[in-house]
Amino acid sequence: MPRVSQDQLDARRREILTGARACFARHGYEGATVRRLEQETGLSRGAIFHHFRDKESLFLAVAEDDAAAMVATVARNGLVQVMRELLARAGTTDTVGWLGTQLEVARRLRTDPAFAKRWAARSEAIAEATRDRLTRQREAGVLRDDVPIPVLAQFLQLTYDGLVLHLAMDHPPSPELTQVLDLIEAAVRRPPAP
Amino acid sequence: MPRVSQDQLDARRREILTGARACFARHGYEGATVRRLEQETGLSRGAIFHHFRDKESLFLAVAEDDAAAMVATVARNGLVQVMRELLARAGTTDTVGWLGTQLEVARRLRTDPAFAKRWAARSEAIAEATRDRLTRQREAGVLRDDVPIPVLAQFLQLTYDGLVLHLAMDHPPSPELTQVLDLIEAAVRRPPAP
Repeated sequence: MPRVSQDQLDARRREILTGARACFARHGYEGATVRRLEQETGLSRGAIFHHFRDKESLFLAVAEDDAAAMVATVARNGLVQVMRELLARAGTTDTVGWLGTQLEVARRLRTDPAFAKRWAARSEAIAEATRDRLTRQREAGVLRDDVPIPVLAQFLQLTYDGLVLHLAMDHPPSPELTQVLDLIEAAVRRPPAP
Repeated sequence: MPRVSQDQLDARRREILTGARACFARHGYEGATVRRLEQETGLSRGAIFHHFRDKESLFLAVAEDDAAAMVATVARNGLVQVMRELLARAGTTDTVGWLGTQLEVARRLRTDPAFAKRWAARSEAIAEATRDRLTRQREAGVLRDDVPIPVLAQFLQLTYDGLVLHLAMDHPPSPELTQVLDLIEAAVRRPPAP
């Protein structure tokens, strides 16, 4: 039996996550049968479940992968930038798949208390990255200073969730969205001197 | 066979919608089996499907009922007020059921093109009520006048969708939400004179 390097294992894992993300998005959690996961990843169930204990673990890995990527982008560029990128990529296969995963997360949070508990830490990491970045922006003097950071952070998260839901539902996205994002950004910034 | 009055028919229809709304919210569209719909409404399948052709029609009637109520409230009090009421009632059984229906609508819009087509008219009625009210507010001089009405309307809808998703996922709601709604309202209003 040939030895498999860590790089190869990682690449295989990533390949499974990509296929699984598309599969969950297209068919929902329940509809993503093992057979469909095989088709979408191009791998056997043996190969898939060598890397992930079960479908539950695979779904959670997809969602956690997305959350980690989002924390990194928020820390670097802020939540409004995440929204601008999401809007720019709306309608591409990747984004459609990712939006589907987000809706599945929302649904499972409602219907599955064990999942909700495991998910809470991921959700808090995104919130924390948002607050950290806002704090740095306030120190830099670009943020309005009449509203507490947690309120601004919650406002941004609310608009972000709204954008996710909008893009997940609407094809094509509304033409006003670019201006809406400008409005959201202006709402958290220090108003220009008159 | 006793004669049944229109009032009795309407009351029965309303009773079915209430039970069905709870059932769809708790189990999702697919999970809301005819047996569960019978349990939740306390009526036989014969009685239920005397009023609604099939499960699809029943779900659409629940969702349309919700959309009609929302159009009426938006026209009267505006979308921010709808959000304030939603927040005040968060966690009550009615609201939890209603939020579940909203998420099911979002999911079916993605997965069912025929449903998406039937739903488009409802969605547009809510958007139109929002724009109409904003137009009246602008005429009354309380709205900011540097941003077009369709952008303000889309901004409010985005925050509304975000609130729905947040409340559908989070128990209990974040304590900052009241201040977030104040921030949203201020973002569409004419700034106070300095």
